[in-house]
Amino acid sequence: MQETISDILTKIGYPSDLRALPESKLEEVCAALRKFIIDEVSIHPGHFASSLGVIELTVALHYVYNTPYDRIVWDVGHQAYPHKILTGRRDKFCTLRQMGGLCGFPTPAESEYDTFAAGHASNSISAALGMAVASNIHGEDRKVVAVIGDASISGGLAFEGLNNASSHPNDLLIILNDNKMAIDKNVGALYNYLIKISTSQRYNQLRYKAYSTLKRYNLMKDSMRRAVIRFNNSLKSLFSHRQNIFEGLDIRYFGPIDGHDVVSLVHFLRKIKDLNGPKMLHLCTIKGKGYEPAEREATLWHAPGKFNPETGELVREDASGMPPLFQDVFGKTLVELAEADSRIVGITPAMPTGCSMNFMMERFPDRTFDVGIAEEHAVTFSGGLAKEGCLPFCNIYSSFMQRAIDEVIHDVSLLKLHVVFCLDRAGIVGADGPTHHGAFDVAFFRAIPNMIVCSPINEHWLRTLMFTATKVDGPMMIRYPRGRGSLVDWQCPLSEVQIGKGYCLKEGADAAVLSFGPIGNEVTKAIEIAEQSGRSIAHYDMVFCKPLDIQLLKHVFSKFSHVVTVEDGTLVGGFGSAVLEEANRVGYKGAIDCLGLPDSFVPHGTVAQLYHLCGIDAEGIASKLMVNDND
Amino acid sequence: MQETISDILTKIGYPSDLRALPESKLEEVCAALRKFIIDEVSIHPGHFASSLGVIELTVALHYVYNTPYDRIVWDVGHQAYPHKILTGRRDKFCTLRQMGGLCGFPTPAESEYDTFAAGHASNSISAALGMAVASNIHGEDRKVVAVIGDASISGGLAFEGLNNASSHPNDLLIILNDNKMAIDKNVGALYNYLIKISTSQRYNQLRYKAYSTLKRYNLMKDSMRRAVIRFNNSLKSLFSHRQNIFEGLDIRYFGPIDGHDVVSLVHFLRKIKDLNGPKMLHLCTIKGKGYEPAEREATLWHAPGKFNPETGELVREDASGMPPLFQDVFGKTLVELAEADSRIVGITPAMPTGCSMNFMMERFPDRTFDVGIAEEHAVTFSGGLAKEGCLPFCNIYSSFMQRAIDEVIHDVSLLKLHVVFCLDRAGIVGADGPTHHGAFDVAFFRAIPNMIVCSPINEHWLRTLMFTATKVDGPMMIRYPRGRGSLVDWQCPLSEVQIGKGYCLKEGADAAVLSFGPIGNEVTKAIEIAEQSGRSIAHYDMVFCKPLDIQLLKHVFSKFSHVVTVEDGTLVGGFGSAVLEEANRVGYKGAIDCLGLPDSFVPHGTVAQLYHLCGIDAEGIASKLMVNDND
Repeated sequence: MQETISDILTKIGYPSDLRALPESKLEEVCAALRKFIIDEVSIHPGHFASSLGVIELTVALHYVYNTPYDRIVWDVGHQAYPHKILTGRRDKFCTLRQMGGLCGFPTPAESEYDTFAAGHASNSISAALGMAVASNIHGEDRKVVAVIGDASISGGLAFEGLNNASSHPNDLLIILNDNKMAIDKNVGALYNYLIKISTSQRYNQLRYKAYSTLKRYNLMKDSMRRAVIRFNNSLKSLFSHRQNIFEGLDIRYFGPIDGHDVVSLVHFLRKIKDLNGPKMLHLCTIKGKGYEPAEREATLWHAPGKFNPETGELVREDASGMPPLFQDVFGKTLVELAEADSRIVGITPAMPTGCSMNFMMERFPDRTFDVGIAEEHAVTFSGGLAKEGCLPFCNIYSSFMQRAIDEVIHDVSLLKLHVVFCLDRAGIVGADGPTHHGAFDVAFFRAIPNMIVCSPINEHWLRTLMFTATKVDGPMMIRYPRGRGSLVDWQCPLSEVQIGKGYCLKEGADAAVLSFGPIGNEVTKAIEIAEQSGRSIAHYDMVFCKPLDIQLLKHVFSKFSHVVTVEDGTLVGGFGSAVLEEANRVGYKGAIDCLGLPDSFVPHGTVAQLYHLCGIDAEGIASKLMVNDND
Repeated sequence: MQETISDILTKIGYPSDLRALPESKLEEVCAALRKFIIDEVSIHPGHFASSLGVIELTVALHYVYNTPYDRIVWDVGHQAYPHKILTGRRDKFCTLRQMGGLCGFPTPAESEYDTFAAGHASNSISAALGMAVASNIHGEDRKVVAVIGDASISGGLAFEGLNNASSHPNDLLIILNDNKMAIDKNVGALYNYLIKISTSQRYNQLRYKAYSTLKRYNLMKDSMRRAVIRFNNSLKSLFSHRQNIFEGLDIRYFGPIDGHDVVSLVHFLRKIKDLNGPKMLHLCTIKGKGYEPAEREATLWHAPGKFNPETGELVREDASGMPPLFQDVFGKTLVELAEADSRIVGITPAMPTGCSMNFMMERFPDRTFDVGIAEEHAVTFSGGLAKEGCLPFCNIYSSFMQRAIDEVIHDVSLLKLHVVFCLDRAGIVGADGPTHHGAFDVAFFRAIPNMIVCSPINEHWLRTLMFTATKVDGPMMIRYPRGRGSLVDWQCPLSEVQIGKGYCLKEGADAAVLSFGPIGNEVTKAIEIAEQSGRSIAHYDMVFCKPLDIQLLKHVFSKFSHVVTVEDGTLVGGFGSAVLEEANRVGYKGAIDCLGLPDSFVPHGTVAQLYHLCGIDAEGIASKLMVNDND
């Protein structure tokens, strides 16, 4: 049997091969895909449960639609593995998320079947609408399908897309992949609403029958659309006592239907494919479908790392003797702070587990707010809380914080409200790649008036800065990276430091390095390398990018004719630029080398590989410390 | 009669005075307020029609609620004039929007009655929800009311707020001020939806009666809330054949009711004030209510400038012989470009008149998209259009573009899509103040890989850069300010320039000025002043901030020991920083003075006053050209 299953997959190089198969073979294809993904991801870790949940949908879409001429736009793209496997990338699948290998998300640079950028939630409807409207303008018969999850659809951008879907002529199909989950359990009113319409079986069956009958007798002309919507709404209210939000937005709504019956799905897609106007198909799917451990614990199996595919046993990294994750230091320190300071509340947009705010959620459920995928709301809501005397710690991944820059400016900084922004996943994040690297936060935040911008070199400093953040009188941003710190014994006493004060980590004579954040640990190693060749290098941890420690800088400038800045963020407008601005202000005439992320999108790979690529690993930094034109 | 009317207003210093009046006086208060605003705004120009539309609502809110202990959060704040007048600022009202005078928007720095920042649409629900949740945490009986228009509620942030409104315990009241208008006519599916529920009279009357009956017999307990919602929904579907979006989001919905019957409004607010849980009251109002010319043409009367209050005649600025508005040059040039290039489409988020895309909308209605207040969607939708071969010109005011920075990065630049971002209102905008100054766009956009960032010194250059933008192969941003250019004869032939090339406007010997954008015209004047005292100053218009003209910079650095950069944007990470980065790279040892906006929020005033304040008017720039420590 196993031979047969993999046989069928090897026959499918591209969707055209899939479309050549009879319908009766589709379940076999799904089973083969499922086994392939379980086996591959168990060895080459990646996102797992989301992909298992859309296997039938992916097969049905490529079977019914004429891809790549027709366009499928995947939202976020955690779920795109079966899509990648069916579109010419099965043999490369073992390179997934490795440097030079396949990207973990759909990306047009990799395949014409990947139609748009994915990685940040909620963009698919707007992007697909643009494509569908363009097809309409060009008089093409291209079909465009957006596939969006029930978590992503809560983002403001998705709503803006829905609100515009009926404004311009287009035949967009939005597939709502409703698995009741974000990475963590989904939240919000729309989520509750979807549960209610999904569980209203009597209504749905009736509704579908009514539709089929109209269709069968050729009564389902487009001119009758409004009448049908009304008819459906009457049914709905009679049988479910609920209303339909999407039809309120003039999007024709179908469903919910079972997302794991591939043949029914094919039939349904064929029925609605050629209907004019924007429409939504609501699918109920199970995250982790077909792999029992993942079905049971979808959050754990969102991106499980290596595992034994037979037993479902996770290959746990032996973390004994290792430094903790920065996120856990954040999460546990937040609980300590909240225990001592009743003003403190926690806000996370759909990442309680990812940022370890789940510790606070357990300890203080009434003071912790998971607002769903809604970064803008997370920031403005924090502003409102702060205005009335709460002290919000708002934790948002650096690259997702790009969604809420205006709110940071307008709803927090302008009012000088005391909100602490904790930016997890700042700098290079590794395998998730360019959509997820936190490259721009320092350049953006330091341009915002009233903002304090800092980064801890290690876990003790993270705790120190979090404690210090409770003492200031306005907004403060603390950035720290994905992954582990450098100290095993992380639980130091909480203490306050002076805002804007940098520290000398090591004296030296020939050159000085100014570092910002945990990349300072690479600097320490670089200095060891450089000093082996006889150089003497001083090292300063600036801690604060804004305000900069002017006194310390003046001291450094007076003592050294060669200064190197090192940061894990974009060089354009970042920490190095801040130092240059100050150097210019005080008329420094020495040489300054700025090391950091380049003015291009950094690809995916391991953090070590990418640090090397950007010249900010120990070796790269050391090379700048050994050679100096000014010497 | 007029004496009586103004008498009543002089008796109201604060809302407590209003609350001391009998209900029978409220209509008189409204009439007096209306007359006061018409008279004042006719002399001291500001936002007009929005405020006339909420006079009854404002009076009713301050009458029923215990402000400032209870909180009113105004969305955008165009409509806050009656609120300002009733809250201790009547005597200062003549200073509105003038430097040192009252701000045009609510601002907590001005009054404790102004509870949150306003200026950028759609933030009120999230901010008010934060306040309401904070009150709940603190065990306070404070009431919080958000007032949001039917245009602002289409923004993604507002939806995120609505979606979270029922997630946390709170008693928030959201008042939907439905006047069918943004600054221009409102658009989108939600807008159409609101029209339908507002016009469904039979249903609404029945619904209201049902509610009142339940209430009267004390059947309206909170435990019955769900039952009442269901009952209402059944009514709704029976009588209107429509559904209610807001109740789908678990927000109890009341209305629509007439927003201009102040006594009914007071009664209604009293009835719903103490109900637990989030609720929405849908008011139908008329923008410009009570001033016939404004009721007729609400867009024109949004911010009409000076006018004759008796006749409604607008005092038209005599523009003969004056240079055109930059926005009109944009709007007319876009039509020219679109006539010659069928790829071109226009996208504006609710600002067709403000950015003059209405010219294109008239000429090419099928290629112009007003997407409503939805900056994020505007950008991602543009990305989708570009992906399929359209060439979008996406025009967003600089400070509103802050809402869509992530989409510029993730949905356009990462894919290197050919989208032209035209940022109107870049730099100092004048009377609208800190929420509207376009201070951060250069610092943000130049940090984004693949992005071209430029600014025209005058109208010819705007046309040249727009034409050039059709020839590039990726994203390009063109920024230009509010107001008029400097050339009367603006309609030059369209020509292409080399990307990243700067130009020498004037040779000189003692120092060089590098300017970016129309602020270069102040530099020209500054040089005239400086040269009167014997200095010889060169002037270079860099045109492009990214890529910078490295060859030109090298030439300048080799020739001058004193360089001054001038920009109408923040100095932190802006154009000056870009020059510093390059100067550092090539090892320039001369002095560089950077002039631009400070690292603080610039207040409101005239553009000339604010240029002076920031030291970037001719005088301020000249002072830097006359003194130089290095000379």
